[in-house]
Amino acid sequence: MKILLTNDDGINAPGLYALFNEISKIAEVKVVAPDSEKSAVGHAITLSDPLRVSDFYKNEHFFGYAVNGTPADCVKLAYWALDIKPDVVISGINLGSNTGINILYSGTVSAATEGMFLNIPSIAISLTTFHQPDFHFAAKFAAYLAKIVSKNGLPSGTLLNVNVPAVPEDEIEGVVITRQGHANYQEKFDKRTDPHKRIYYWLTGTKIELEKDDEVDDRAIINKNISITPVQFDLTNYGFMKELESWNIKI
Amino acid sequence: MKILLTNDDGINAPGLYALFNEISKIAEVKVVAPDSEKSAVGHAITLSDPLRVSDFYKNEHFFGYAVNGTPADCVKLAYWALDIKPDVVISGINLGSNTGINILYSGTVSAATEGMFLNIPSIAISLTTFHQPDFHFAAKFAAYLAKIVSKNGLPSGTLLNVNVPAVPEDEIEGVVITRQGHANYQEKFDKRTDPHKRIYYWLTGTKIELEKDDEVDDRAIINKNISITPVQFDLTNYGFMKELESWNIKI
Repeated sequence: MKILLTNDDGINAPGLYALFNEISKIAEVKVVAPDSEKSAVGHAITLSDPLRVSDFYKNEHFFGYAVNGTPADCVKLAYWALDIKPDVVISGINLGSNTGINILYSGTVSAATEGMFLNIPSIAISLTTFHQPDFHFAAKFAAYLAKIVSKNGLPSGTLLNVNVPAVPEDEIEGVVITRQGHANYQEKFDKRTDPHKRIYYWLTGTKIELEKDDEVDDRAIINKNISITPVQFDLTNYGFMKELESWNIKI
Repeated sequence: MKILLTNDDGINAPGLYALFNEISKIAEVKVVAPDSEKSAVGHAITLSDPLRVSDFYKNEHFFGYAVNGTPADCVKLAYWALDIKPDVVISGINLGSNTGINILYSGTVSAATEGMFLNIPSIAISLTTFHQPDFHFAAKFAAYLAKIVSKNGLPSGTLLNVNVPAVPEDEIEGVVITRQGHANYQEKFDKRTDPHKRIYYWLTGTKIELEKDDEVDDRAIINKNISITPVQFDLTNYGFMKELESWNIKI
């Protein structure tokens, strides 16, 4: 089995390294990842600038290609330019959750989406904390899931978005198949003045009204379960097409 | 009626200006747009840098706020920091189509998605050409559609993604309610050497196997119809959840 690893926290991130160590036990691993942190880049791709690829050695075990682009760029470039044709793509382990509407902002998920576009079974995996992360269990789980996904395949146009709760391994309750949460955010911008007396804004955000449904990704995490959401890329609201047709919009 | 306009081609783009001129006839218009071109940024938001807002006067009629951020940043900032609470959000007019899987890369659509998250009826509109664009008809159509959408509302979590074919107005056949196309791309990277003998890659892309179904967004455009796709943000593959449960993934 050949597995391509990438992420959005950058090629030097500990989450990627933990993943590398575990996945290396079960597969031939290739790493193609951004040369620096690319969080909340959404599904960005680089069109107007050249992409460069550098060799990156973290130590005698870990070698990868560092790209001056986004997570999506990395997967495209790996497949089409570096001739890496993996059996599975894994993106992560992200520092912090990728749940609810945040999936749309997630560089981690966007890399897995690129794998999915290539009809390669793809997994995005995140650890739901920013504080003292211990990636060890999440990495082991990724290796276990990669074997399952490689064996079973995934439906065309579908990836798995995995979130692992940041609790000690023996406190994890189990695995729940979830749906993407719908909770919106109450956004807040800090308005500040810089040393040169110019105003700037900085985004903060506080979640409101988390749904109570146990099937929701964030709820599974709160309940100390691993959340696995099957994610697909067709955004069409099929249910609304008929009504929209009845509006009789004309030129 | 109050309408917020934004785009991803930047505040000085002719597509935004054409939209401004038509929408001003039917509504009070506010413009908050990126200070430079932000194409293919996906649903990126700016977390690690401060955002700045500058007054932008194109001429005596057109005033807007230019933001050093992404389209999604602009809508968030407009609503939460600049206290602009519009009845409708319109993003565009984009130079080039936003159809099929490209919706996921689209800054234009991401701005409308932010409007949708705020429960404001939102429209993304694109003109399907890069060559000698004439935005006039698309702008008029946007104004017409904004009035309809303002009156009828849109389902929670749904926006309209509109693509206008770049043909003379009298050649446009009509309006088709479409679904997002699924065609993948055969990607290609040019491998080049820079003047300092370093290698770089540049993404190009050629579409393959466009679906024949008349309900597909790209197909509507080929048939000289305006394509309107109702787009929603829940990426869950509900149909696959049961099967995934049957895999019995355990810790």
